[in-house]
Amino acid sequence: MTRGPRTITLLTDFGLHDAYAGIMHGVIASIAPRARVIDLCHEVQPFQIHQARFLLRQSWPYFPQGSIHVCVIDPGVGAARRPLCVQAAGHLFIGPDNGLFSDQLALQGARVRAITNPQFMLPHVSQTFHGRDIFAPAAAHLAAGVPPSRLGKLIHDATRLATGGPVRIGRRFWLGEVAHIDRFGNVITNLDAAEFLPLAPKGLQLKIGFETLRRRASSYAEAPEGELFVIAGSSGTLEVSMKEASAAKKLGVAVGAPVELEVW
Amino acid sequence: MTRGPRTITLLTDFGLHDAYAGIMHGVIASIAPRARVIDLCHEVQPFQIHQARFLLRQSWPYFPQGSIHVCVIDPGVGAARRPLCVQAAGHLFIGPDNGLFSDQLALQGARVRAITNPQFMLPHVSQTFHGRDIFAPAAAHLAAGVPPSRLGKLIHDATRLATGGPVRIGRRFWLGEVAHIDRFGNVITNLDAAEFLPLAPKGLQLKIGFETLRRRASSYAEAPEGELFVIAGSSGTLEVSMKEASAAKKLGVAVGAPVELEVW
Amino acid sequence: MTRGPRTITLLTDFGLHDAYAGIMHGVIASIAPRARVIDLCHEVQPFQIHQARFLLRQSWPYFPQGSIHVCVIDPGVGAARRPLCVQAAGHLFIGPDNGLFSDQLALQGARVRAITNPQFMLPHVSQTFHGRDIFAPAAAHLAAGVPPSRLGKLIHDATRLATGGPVRIGRRFWLGEVAHIDRFGNVITNLDAAEFLPLAPKGLQLKIGFETLRRRASSYAEAPEGELFVIAGSSGTLEVSMKEASAAKKLGVAVGAPVELEVW
Repeated sequence: MTRGPRTITLLTDFGLHDAYAGIMHGVIASIAPRARVIDLCHEVQPFQIHQARFLLRQSWPYFPQGSIHVCVIDPGVGAARRPLCVQAAGHLFIGPDNGLFSDQLALQGARVRAITNPQFMLPHVSQTFHGRDIFAPAAAHLAAGVPPSRLGKLIHDATRLATGGPVRIGRRFWLGEVAHIDRFGNVITNLDAAEFLPLAPKGLQLKIGFETLRRRASSYAEAPEGELFVIAGSSGTLEVSMKEASAAKKLGVAVGAPVELEVW
Repeated sequence: MTRGPRTITLLTDFGLHDAYAGIMHGVIASIAPRARVIDLCHEVQPFQIHQARFLLRQSWPYFPQGSIHVCVIDPGVGAARRPLCVQAAGHLFIGPDNGLFSDQLALQGARVRAITNPQFMLPHVSQTFHGRDIFAPAAAHLAAGVPPSRLGKLIHDATRLATGGPVRIGRRFWLGEVAHIDRFGNVITNLDAAEFLPLAPKGLQLKIGFETLRRRASSYAEAPEGELFVIAGSSGTLEVSMKEASAAKKLGVAVGAPVELEVW
Repeated sequence: MTRGPRTITLLTDFGLHDAYAGIMHGVIASIAPRARVIDLCHEVQPFQIHQARFLLRQSWPYFPQGSIHVCVIDPGVGAARRPLCVQAAGHLFIGPDNGLFSDQLALQGARVRAITNPQFMLPHVSQTFHGRDIFAPAAAHLAAGVPPSRLGKLIHDATRLATGGPVRIGRRFWLGEVAHIDRFGNVITNLDAAEFLPLAPKGLQLKIGFETLRRRASSYAEAPEGELFVIAGSSGTLEVSMKEASAAKKLGVAVGAPVELEVW
């Protein structure tokens, strides 16, 4: 923070065909003209909190200490759900209290506040666009030096969704799921590579869709063309991929599909 | 402006699959390296001036005083239409003279210049990409401190399109239209909420598509699932919405569709 | 460079539905908090090196001297292909050694290094996301003042793909191809306008798809509606266009389609 401007990231389901994301930039520029604002992703599928959780979990550790991550996937906008400010691991997370921040709330020492101070909201708060009226202004005021304690009081009952981690279903078996499918058709599971690969010194098997996969590769490029393989992906979990082709299309699976892992 | 860098926004129909928007950023960075450039939206449908007007009208007031808004929806590029610099409400608007700025020209005290000074254009001006060759350089020079008066002379005959406001068709009836449909399928009308809601103390009715709607909601979240309702939207006009579903798809309407309002 | 922050541009095939591009911004902000990062384009079709070459060739000259262009179209990630740093024409180019930089390597005085110094990579380099682990950090360290010589040694065998320039097939005939199709459906060829128009004082003819075109226009706006015409496009090559309509759809051609030019 002493080295440069504060970083604010934006993660929303607003898409890029409207000006909603641009308007949030405008609000921030008006309050914190020197903040650095980075679009993490605006193409989260509408209302898909789980997808946003995945993208946030995969991304925030690569941002500078002190970064402020604004996440607006907010089907409950205008209802009673609270606006939150989560402090965890030296980062700040701003968004609605709907489980978006379940993973950050589980970090050691995490603290969470309900944002209630109207001084740090726009003068007129609509019932339909809190990204503009509450979340962007809160982040901008933090970037401009307002301490989190001024936004509102600590709370202890923020919404936490199930971690979505895999479930052990046998001595050598776990049941996980597809957490994300990226543009290249890589099928990203919730099976942590650092946890499971050491348990599989001789081999592993992944059942997904109608396929049973044993082939592993350490990079996309070394794999044979046209074949599905398992790889430790850049998000730190096991992925199913194909060389220069879509594993998701080949498998016919979508986010949430079950994945059965066996190790030996 | 004394608080930070000047803000330049970009609103175009260039899309994000080409490098046209990126090139405009490059031109600006070359001329005004300290300006802050914000992508308002690049996914305006090709040549849809009315859509761009809506997005601009909805957005510019959320940007800092002194912001420079570059708008390039420009079917007439290379023809005789003039490049404009509009000053209004402490903001600057740069783009072609085709009606894009009709709403800003109607603001009190608006002044408009034709940009003619080649000193503030790229050395070679193409016939096909004035966003790069004229509009981005003009905005960047303004951000770098050039006064608007140096771009060219005041004119008084800039193109103004009809405001597109609703028409009164009876004592308690108005005929408006669909101004925009956003990513969530919210159907945004041109019926100003602050104007019409006070006229409807007992109720209102909206005829749109094959539906006649009387249900109102004050937030998306409080509405019953699966039902169309009328809401005062974040753009300040009446919207037709559904909870976590697309009202536009349900109604089968597109931008420009008529909307009949009755109040009582 | 003395005038403002260093500019880093990003050109990838990551798309905007994932957080990959955003993560690269985060890595850069962590290392070079004052650098200015511009998204040139993230919607290159997966693995389409030729498309990326076109977009880069069209764009980089519009950026400030000293800009650092990061290009990640990288089907060989994790395999033996080297990460490169190319210095040419006062700009720097960072990306994989797969021919992406063939055009820049052909510039006079170009020098190229293999990036090997782990000091300027992330501590853990994955086998699947070198944009995050190698290319973004290298660019950020350069922006923060590290000289290119510290990244690695000069090499002389970087991959160069055929220039893709047109071939002369007769005294007045050349065979070129479609280099790019933009959002508006403009069909951009690889036929250099400055080279061929002086050879055609009386006229020219373009055979493309099932059409033979002789009509020329100097701007989109002056052309008659509904007719295909040839124009000197903003990228400096001959384009086939239609007024407010898609020439590509009318012609039924795609990138790579042959274009035969005759001049007289």
